[in-house]
Amino acid sequence: MRDMIIASTSTLHGGKYLEYLTSVLVKRLKRVDASQLLFIPFARPGGISHDDYTSRVREVLLPHDIEVVGLHTQKDLITAVQNAKAIFTGGGNTFQLVKMLHEYQLLAPLRQAIYSGTFYLGTSAGSNICGLNMRTTNDMPVVQPASFKTIGAIGYNINPHYLDPDKNSKHMGETREQRIAEFHIYNNIPVVGLREGSYIDVQGDQEILRGELDARIFEQEKNPYEVAPGYDFASLA
Amino acid sequence: MRDMIIASTSTLHGGKYLEYLTSVLVKRLKRVDASQLLFIPFARPGGISHDDYTSRVREVLLPHDIEVVGLHTQKDLITAVQNAKAIFTGGGNTFQLVKMLHEYQLLAPLRQAIYSGTFYLGTSAGSNICGLNMRTTNDMPVVQPASFKTIGAIGYNINPHYLDPDKNSKHMGETREQRIAEFHIYNNIPVVGLREGSYIDVQGDQEILRGELDARIFEQEKNPYEVAPGYDFASLA
Repeated sequence: MRDMIIASTSTLHGGKYLEYLTSVLVKRLKRVDASQLLFIPFARPGGISHDDYTSRVREVLLPHDIEVVGLHTQKDLITAVQNAKAIFTGGGNTFQLVKMLHEYQLLAPLRQAIYSGTFYLGTSAGSNICGLNMRTTNDMPVVQPASFKTIGAIGYNINPHYLDPDKNSKHMGETREQRIAEFHIYNNIPVVGLREGSYIDVQGDQEILRGELDARIFEQEKNPYEVAPGYDFASLA
Repeated sequence: MRDMIIASTSTLHGGKYLEYLTSVLVKRLKRVDASQLLFIPFARPGGISHDDYTSRVREVLLPHDIEVVGLHTQKDLITAVQNAKAIFTGGGNTFQLVKMLHEYQLLAPLRQAIYSGTFYLGTSAGSNICGLNMRTTNDMPVVQPASFKTIGAIGYNINPHYLDPDKNSKHMGETREQRIAEFHIYNNIPVVGLREGSYIDVQGDQEILRGELDARIFEQEKNPYEVAPGYDFASLA
């Protein structure tokens, strides 16, 4: 019985950190009677320390009487994941995040926790790791993880911060769509391009698109197509 | 006695493939008396086949009486690299390129060839591999190479297609500058952001910026700074 929010971004343009997600997050935490949230700060956006990153989340949830515990402060990380009622993995650099998850052997415990019903929130890099591998991240490979394999809590990959091609650009680097097309030369896993403000609401067998924007689905040897909020991605698996 | 052109891109906006580089390339090939160019097509931009990619280069050099040979057509790849007078590695996906170079054990032969004076042209992914590792590529990690280690023909890394932050953007994904700052959390290698149209002209001990645009240098724990055409990057090593 999965219970997840897989979000494209933590922050909307002009908004505060987690602002657009706070009310749905608090509601879901109350529903599973979680007064504590286990935070995984390993993606370190901009190189922020684990402590400082955890404090950012703590500040957001303090007014809602939710205690935030950084996974890095725990003696036994695997047990901490196993005992958590609710887990949040923040965004940042997916390579660094996945490197740490492999080093601490946390992928299997996370998968087990999610399939046992532990609430999970991911934003950006924290959403990338919900897919089958991290081969559709937008991040720079600043460190080398032992493997690109990720949690596999859903049967496809996420491309967070999905960005439509800018027709006025004179830049000759690849567009996001071209990059995902390159992924499909070597892989047959479907990819969901999640625009900022969108998230996938996973409840049991359902994987519903939420937010105001459409999402873009990329499958091998098919033209990409758009799906509207309310769409269930479960059949992609 | 190195003899290299390390270019940000193969193609300028509105230009044809290799157009802006053809005259300097032909001049350099004549200088080393190379009537043949060994082309490494492994980066496969957009998934183009090795044959088709090689044909694209062949078409450009046909009017100049330069024969283009695809490395993939050679029986013994290492010997082909060792015997070449001139080598060109084209752009595309750096992960796929580096995966192939490791699988065929071509990194050491390429390094040796370059330091023995074999002319080398790299564009985009073909330039990324001239640095110490591929950790500053912009590409999507669509496949997993055995290692991120690259040729090390220069003592720093390249970020090709360097793109200045767009102040009007409402997109919350990281800017290029933020990504390189993340690289410097975990690495102390200098990074040269090469804008499109720029290249590094390596001749012996000199590594000179050519083209019309400035380049941007990123060093750990320093503010990034701009250098003008004519600048010698050799001291960065």
